[in-house]
Amino acid sequence: MKHSHILLAHGSGGRLSQQLIEEMFVSSFDKHAVPRELNDGAVLALPPGKVVMSTDSFVISPLFFPGGDIGKLAVSGTVNDLVACGSRPLYLSTAFILEEGFSLDSLRRIVQSMADTARLAGVELVTGDTKVVEKGSVDQIFINTAGIGVVPDGVVYQPGRINAGDRVLVTGTIGDHGLTILAEREGFKFNTPVTSDCAPLHEIGQSLQPFGEKVHCMRDPTRGGLATVLNELAVQAGLGIQVEEERIPILDAVRSACNMLGMDPLYMANEGKMVIICEPGISEKVLSTLRSIDVSKNATDIGEVISQPAGMVLIKTALGIERILTALEGEHVPRIC
Amino acid sequence: MKHSHILLAHGSGGRLSQQLIEEMFVSSFDKHAVPRELNDGAVLALPPGKVVMSTDSFVISPLFFPGGDIGKLAVSGTVNDLVACGSRPLYLSTAFILEEGFSLDSLRRIVQSMADTARLAGVELVTGDTKVVEKGSVDQIFINTAGIGVVPDGVVYQPGRINAGDRVLVTGTIGDHGLTILAEREGFKFNTPVTSDCAPLHEIGQSLQPFGEKVHCMRDPTRGGLATVLNELAVQAGLGIQVEEERIPILDAVRSACNMLGMDPLYMANEGKMVIICEPGISEKVLSTLRSIDVSKNATDIGEVISQPAGMVLIKTALGIERILTALEGEHVPRIC
Repeated sequence: MKHSHILLAHGSGGRLSQQLIEEMFVSSFDKHAVPRELNDGAVLALPPGKVVMSTDSFVISPLFFPGGDIGKLAVSGTVNDLVACGSRPLYLSTAFILEEGFSLDSLRRIVQSMADTARLAGVELVTGDTKVVEKGSVDQIFINTAGIGVVPDGVVYQPGRINAGDRVLVTGTIGDHGLTILAEREGFKFNTPVTSDCAPLHEIGQSLQPFGEKVHCMRDPTRGGLATVLNELAVQAGLGIQVEEERIPILDAVRSACNMLGMDPLYMANEGKMVIICEPGISEKVLSTLRSIDVSKNATDIGEVISQPAGMVLIKTALGIERILTALEGEHVPRIC
Repeated sequence: MKHSHILLAHGSGGRLSQQLIEEMFVSSFDKHAVPRELNDGAVLALPPGKVVMSTDSFVISPLFFPGGDIGKLAVSGTVNDLVACGSRPLYLSTAFILEEGFSLDSLRRIVQSMADTARLAGVELVTGDTKVVEKGSVDQIFINTAGIGVVPDGVVYQPGRINAGDRVLVTGTIGDHGLTILAEREGFKFNTPVTSDCAPLHEIGQSLQPFGEKVHCMRDPTRGGLATVLNELAVQAGLGIQVEEERIPILDAVRSACNMLGMDPLYMANEGKMVIICEPGISEKVLSTLRSIDVSKNATDIGEVISQPAGMVLIKTALGIERILTALEGEHVPRIC
């Protein structure tokens, strides 16, 4: 590549666009992508099962942060949405919007990170698009990924399948990603460094597949945090959810930093966690399965589904006092993912 | 909706995000989307055949222009990429990146336009994402669509299938979209109004399906224009392409405006045209089929595939002089789609 920064011409559809695609994207992605002619679309080989589709755009700031970067996040985010649908993630499309003047070195790091994360998660990046806009029309780089996965027979994760008495599990500590981004952005320093939990959760999906329909629902608590996702699930299930505050795993460093900043970790974004709702009879086995996987080694049972009050989440404090845990109101932390 | 403009909180993942999704997107899109629980992904019903995937981000400026808007463009663009792969377009994901302060009325118009275009093209908008960034971090609104289509048996559109002697067809006048956007942006006024050709081309795909493998390749000449797409095809096929300048359909208004502006319509973007390469024996039948459809009523045979010079495009002028037609170099018109 002759240039060190992105030019408008890299998005023209002409020779420089072609060169960028070939030198940057094809060379990073082709190791695990089926070789294809450079066409506007890609042919997918799909195993039997229900096909699911998901998409997310990533606008995080800063682009590089402890524990990850926008590239790792862009692949993990869509992989995790596909896992939450009960599917095995298989294929991703990826679309870049670049600001004129963006560093090609940074782009290379991001693309490499996407390729590494895709390889880890077992997904192929099969088709893409690159647009370049004038300086000032976008903040550095935004990435969209859309993904395709296939749901194996016997797996049906839907809020409609949640029953009163089901256990509510979370796969690890809450608020790590949100706090890390906030701290990076504001230049806060902590004694104990905190890193984002950003990670693809394909192993969680795979390992819970044998439990079949006894796992009722799965959802990743990203924007809006654990509190908001629990509220969504309660509303969609038409049931209540009761959690115990003491049981929710939160790193001491995250808890104390949140206290200092006046933030509540329950509303902080997570990018490598799942909320899992399952039949009570299998919850211990599910927990021990999850704990055998690195990304979910701190999996915990945090509460249960109750019939009343429908559509609401109750949280019981250490002192036994119960209060309503509402969904996120207002903006919290913008550009967290 | 209580607000008239987008707030950062509309992208928080909390209550305002939910409200935006329900009042804006679900109400516009649900008429043709299979009713689904508001999950992070959508289940797709797929007929037999090869599944293809494509994606594009849309960053066009201005958002509304004669003949279309960013919403119509975002649906048409991905539908047309799927058609160019030989597939019947079936499902789209859609992801919005919105600038804080963006008008909700404009968003509503754009979303309605996406819904209308999707209905026309027979595709379902099945899953989506909305991010909001601070004022100044994006120029108003960018939209990504990713799409899934299924290729019927007997259809294989690939540059590798192009042979010397094949005919090169274009489905209508060239340069309309690019010139329209340029004129709007710069405030040029012309005596004869020019409108963008922005349109979904699903009917072209459907109508050529009966020709099966005798149609060898299809590509939509968007960014970079006809000249760049012909060069891509020549390189990928390892063959030459020879076109006759006089046969390339260009509206008088486009031609004279381009002359005045020092632009070449052959490099201007099109958003409702296809280049089709087929066996010579069926080209007349293909043309009459295309001419029976409104979006391709001006379909024309513009030249043929030749064995030498491989990877190059030659253009023969009215005076019989032949010159090399290169791919686009440099930036031409940024943010054209």
